[in-house]
Amino acid sequence: MSSSCLYGVGVGTGNPELITLKALRILQSVPVIAYPATDSGKSFARSIVAEFLKGNQIEIPIVLPFKLEISAQPLYDQAADKLAQHLNNGRDVALLCEGDPFFYGSFMYIFNRLSQKFATEVIPGISSVMASAAMIGVPLTYRNDVFVVLSGILSGEILTEKLKVADAAVIIKLGNNFKKVKQVLQELGLVERAKYIEYATGENQRILSVNEVEAETVPYFSLIVIPSQSDFSPSSPSKFSN
Amino acid sequence: MSSSCLYGVGVGTGNPELITLKALRILQSVPVIAYPATDSGKSFARSIVAEFLKGNQIEIPIVLPFKLEISAQPLYDQAADKLAQHLNNGRDVALLCEGDPFFYGSFMYIFNRLSQKFATEVIPGISSVMASAAMIGVPLTYRNDVFVVLSGILSGEILTEKLKVADAAVIIKLGNNFKKVKQVLQELGLVERAKYIEYATGENQRILSVNEVEAETVPYFSLIVIPSQSDFSPSSPSKFSN
Repeated sequence: MSSSCLYGVGVGTGNPELITLKALRILQSVPVIAYPATDSGKSFARSIVAEFLKGNQIEIPIVLPFKLEISAQPLYDQAADKLAQHLNNGRDVALLCEGDPFFYGSFMYIFNRLSQKFATEVIPGISSVMASAAMIGVPLTYRNDVFVVLSGILSGEILTEKLKVADAAVIIKLGNNFKKVKQVLQELGLVERAKYIEYATGENQRILSVNEVEAETVPYFSLIVIPSQSDFSPSSPSKFSN
Repeated sequence: MSSSCLYGVGVGTGNPELITLKALRILQSVPVIAYPATDSGKSFARSIVAEFLKGNQIEIPIVLPFKLEISAQPLYDQAADKLAQHLNNGRDVALLCEGDPFFYGSFMYIFNRLSQKFATEVIPGISSVMASAAMIGVPLTYRNDVFVVLSGILSGEILTEKLKVADAAVIIKLGNNFKKVKQVLQELGLVERAKYIEYATGENQRILSVNEVEAETVPYFSLIVIPSQSDFSPSSPSKFSN
């Protein structure tokens, strides 16, 4: 095993000031930084920390399909190989990750390919879950609440079933799924309580009620927060199920 | 409304380097800092950021009962009054919060008393959920996983029911509840998959398999992580329910 290290560095959701002191130290000290990027080379993760980069590092954009499919596997293989070359040559690599590296990210697909061969370390980041509640200004969970994170990609039936067992929830990956999610919230009587946020903590952040949102404009980086209802209701039976 | 601001500052779970740049800036710039403390004046939240404090700030330890009960309400009233005096006199106050302020904290009880009268801002922090997965070194959630956070205080029956609908989970507030939680995990066949961690990211952090844990020694600041099983299994039916 080489002595070099692969760092998964959480960079949060958009505001550069919400990276940790450790993330800053690591990303300024490694010789190689890598980040997810689009075909055209744009990288949201890199843009968050751009002001901290000194310009003397090797940069590796990793172009991955936006939606993860089985066919993405060879692309992850290639990306992992690229990083492995630097690690084998004794160079530490920091892979920038939006939000938190181990929470619904794509970092794991690289991690799972390299963690047997190289030292790895994950620097946790501010997740969109916590960032969104903070920006909306609403307490998310109290005491013994049951908290659930759901993907908007799930079917309306599954979303309904899972929301019913929760006291508070966050629904991520809205995008094209917004209409379906909104209908589920309507059926459960949760529209008034829910809050929509896109690009949390970023310069283009928007916070809207669910009814204000135009479904056609909903980006991938958006979510719906359904905060806990109060600080002294019993945690069971569920507050969603009545 | 006074122009002063109440900041809820997330300070993470133990490692001072895991506070955000914004948290550091706020806690070094406000004239008043407050923090939860024990009867004897000890404060875990303060200890995390002690090295960053300059010694010229007014400090307000807030002594609160460890377990939140209805009878704690007058104590929150008193604490809120104390902070309100400073806010009314134009002094910004930073209330330090372990982990993230809006996620299972006690900050909300102060927030809910003061947010109508004063400007408030929440600086999100690294939650024990993300910190623990990072320290254990295991990806927590993939793609469209259903992720659940549960309190160990809940009954074995409720824990079982809620775990069955999840693909990945974290069980917080173990302490005296460890034995009950372990039995639930045994019944669901999750003991091997689960990982126990206490004081995540702190100097006295310990990571153990569930079977290695001595129930009598489990502190409040401990949790069990049940990571997602793999990156390409379908997210439904649940991986816990078979």
